[in-house]
Amino acid sequence: MTTYEMVRTKAEAAHRAAGELAVTSTVIKNKALLAMADALEAGAAEILAANAKDMEAGRANNMKESMLDRLALSQVRINAMAEGLRQVAQLEDPVGNVLDGRRLPNGLTVTKVRVPLGVIGIIYEARPNVTADAIGLCVKSGNAVILKGGSEALQSNIVIAGILTQAAEAAGIPAGAIQFVDSSDRQAVTDLIKMNGLVDVVIPRGGAGLIQAVVQNATVPVIETGIGVCHTYVDAGADYDMARAIAINAKVQRPAVCNAMETLLVHEDAAAEFLPQMLTEYFAAGVTIIGCGKTQAFDKRIRAATEADWATEYGDLRLSVKIVSGLEEALAHIAKYGTKHSECIVTSDYNHARTFQQRVDAAAVYVNASTRFTDGFEFGFGAEIGISTQKLHARGPMALPELTSSKYLISGDGQIRG
Amino acid sequence: MTTYEMVRTKAEAAHRAAGELAVTSTVIKNKALLAMADALEAGAAEILAANAKDMEAGRANNMKESMLDRLALSQVRINAMAEGLRQVAQLEDPVGNVLDGRRLPNGLTVTKVRVPLGVIGIIYEARPNVTADAIGLCVKSGNAVILKGGSEALQSNIVIAGILTQAAEAAGIPAGAIQFVDSSDRQAVTDLIKMNGLVDVVIPRGGAGLIQAVVQNATVPVIETGIGVCHTYVDAGADYDMARAIAINAKVQRPAVCNAMETLLVHEDAAAEFLPQMLTEYFAAGVTIIGCGKTQAFDKRIRAATEADWATEYGDLRLSVKIVSGLEEALAHIAKYGTKHSECIVTSDYNHARTFQQRVDAAAVYVNASTRFTDGFEFGFGAEIGISTQKLHARGPMALPELTSSKYLISGDGQIRG
Repeated sequence: MTTYEMVRTKAEAAHRAAGELAVTSTVIKNKALLAMADALEAGAAEILAANAKDMEAGRANNMKESMLDRLALSQVRINAMAEGLRQVAQLEDPVGNVLDGRRLPNGLTVTKVRVPLGVIGIIYEARPNVTADAIGLCVKSGNAVILKGGSEALQSNIVIAGILTQAAEAAGIPAGAIQFVDSSDRQAVTDLIKMNGLVDVVIPRGGAGLIQAVVQNATVPVIETGIGVCHTYVDAGADYDMARAIAINAKVQRPAVCNAMETLLVHEDAAAEFLPQMLTEYFAAGVTIIGCGKTQAFDKRIRAATEADWATEYGDLRLSVKIVSGLEEALAHIAKYGTKHSECIVTSDYNHARTFQQRVDAAAVYVNASTRFTDGFEFGFGAEIGISTQKLHARGPMALPELTSSKYLISGDGQIRG
Repeated sequence: MTTYEMVRTKAEAAHRAAGELAVTSTVIKNKALLAMADALEAGAAEILAANAKDMEAGRANNMKESMLDRLALSQVRINAMAEGLRQVAQLEDPVGNVLDGRRLPNGLTVTKVRVPLGVIGIIYEARPNVTADAIGLCVKSGNAVILKGGSEALQSNIVIAGILTQAAEAAGIPAGAIQFVDSSDRQAVTDLIKMNGLVDVVIPRGGAGLIQAVVQNATVPVIETGIGVCHTYVDAGADYDMARAIAINAKVQRPAVCNAMETLLVHEDAAAEFLPQMLTEYFAAGVTIIGCGKTQAFDKRIRAATEADWATEYGDLRLSVKIVSGLEEALAHIAKYGTKHSECIVTSDYNHARTFQQRVDAAAVYVNASTRFTDGFEFGFGAEIGISTQKLHARGPMALPELTSSKYLISGDGQIRG
């Protein structure tokens, strides 16, 4: 069987199962999620053994320490995955919710209801917990799922997906609804993202390279996620202590994630009072500062920012800093280099706050708070399958409702169009 | 300037204008729409002169009569276009509407508001009234628009777009927000659908060939519209007079449109009572019947349906007819050959009605009414930019709200993540 045939066979099976899963009751889906959580914990030894093989291969291939950390599983992490499935079981099932409706003048009733998307392809890297998260969210929202994980986590993912599939089917989820592509052939991704008619959407989760490859080559609809070149703009006259606390949190608290800050923009009238202590705090926290010419004048350790720096998601303890002439220059900089993820202004000025929130084109626009809050759990959605940075279908943190579509049900008694 | 450079220049101008248009007030947008309507009527002579050139070229190229009819403009059609713009002015502006919101435990307020999509590309064929409709809906929903019409209507479209752009800008719409690709080079389509970062979505409106070419080649998100292989299933025990009235209306009233029926499915227990009179009515209406073997037994004028027939959107007075063993076979046939547009069951059985609406995967699922009602105006939306047959972002008739995205506004007083 070629890779194409293998992927197509899985897509056909998922497509067949999707019709049945779409009308599977919430009671059965919740029962399945709880059984899947139990099975994951019961299979911990098997999962850890598989994960040890992935870790060994990773070390042999000189994988970076941060990457190894994301790959590593433990009893605690397996319990957390199981707990995640139990939490998804407690969330409201969006399928069947009535979104809108009316009676037309001719007596027809029109009701718009939520339905599953159908078959969702998830393409991801490194972290094996995504396997359990994605399967759980897709099962709950009534979607069949095809998972294609990174080769570095292949052994772990095979075992996790196998355990979850078996438990789900035993609990009444239609056979075929959960598909895992147990191959490290990259061709499988290329095939999956062209399965129009069988796959309804693909969601890539990973680095910019993966996401761009999917966007450029997919013929199936794509939801772009998670590339974040996020800015914090410190306005003149802001509460500079608050600004420093926000700017430290947004950069340092967890620099590898997409809602962390990459560029600090400082009003030129704020720089003298705000920046020296800010730089001291950043250096103390181990942050490397890359700056514009005016910023460099504040400290000789600051290297000059290039055009590429402004557009880079560092994902580590590097930070670009630019001194700007005011709100307009900050807005222009964000429009040019931002990735429409999360942007923040720290200000005391009502009009500047209002203008910033209205004019910045991003999924999440903050006044006086850290960009780190852009997250489905923080926003109170109880789940997250990714953060959409595109404008179609869903924008920002995506939870269960974002994994649904809708259809119109029209009921009549013989109406015809005149 | 190459075609690519021309398209890119227009996309950049639209992208620049989109930021300003997104925050342009409803008052200005409505004033512009009314001014555009007046300008269209004032420019009728110029529009008709340009249309005469297109018609002449069409006749010289042996264009089909139905195509010529769609291309032809008249004073009445120009007035209707103007009236359409005035109606759009009266619709509610979706931009700025609050969709959701909450206060988080840490005191942050999160508000989800509607925002324009940004820049919308519309790729369409033949009918020059689409130029005015699309510009009107995009202006009202705060989106910049790039139009690429068919070469057969180029002269008409150039004049219409020119008149509307001038009137819009004079009334305060940002310069550049309305772009028309005044070229019949097909390369312009290929370039437009790859303008990631400048174009937020493309909506193809036209035949299956155009839509598939866009879906297969676009890297920008696409909303698929309007291919309809729609079915009507007549259940055993249905009100057969009602069924015949619906089946005539769905096929005959306007066969060229996407919500017209292409295939009639008849329960085998209904056939003897229902079908003879149905066929008599169809033949009287000039309908050509293509049928399965069992259907052919009812009349010698019925030619045998091929596999291709079941999957074809005839768009004219041809109809495929199949006698099925019951609801399950009808559902399976629709799942295999339907295009997820509009599907109907005519039945008196509660459980069959419920099962059909739950299990058919389509934008609009009818009980006892003609599929011809799938339309933004009929549904009471007051507008329509197309009918989405995909599941992402929008499904079914798309009006102003479907031309928007959302963003989260988060306001705090120094919150940082722990």
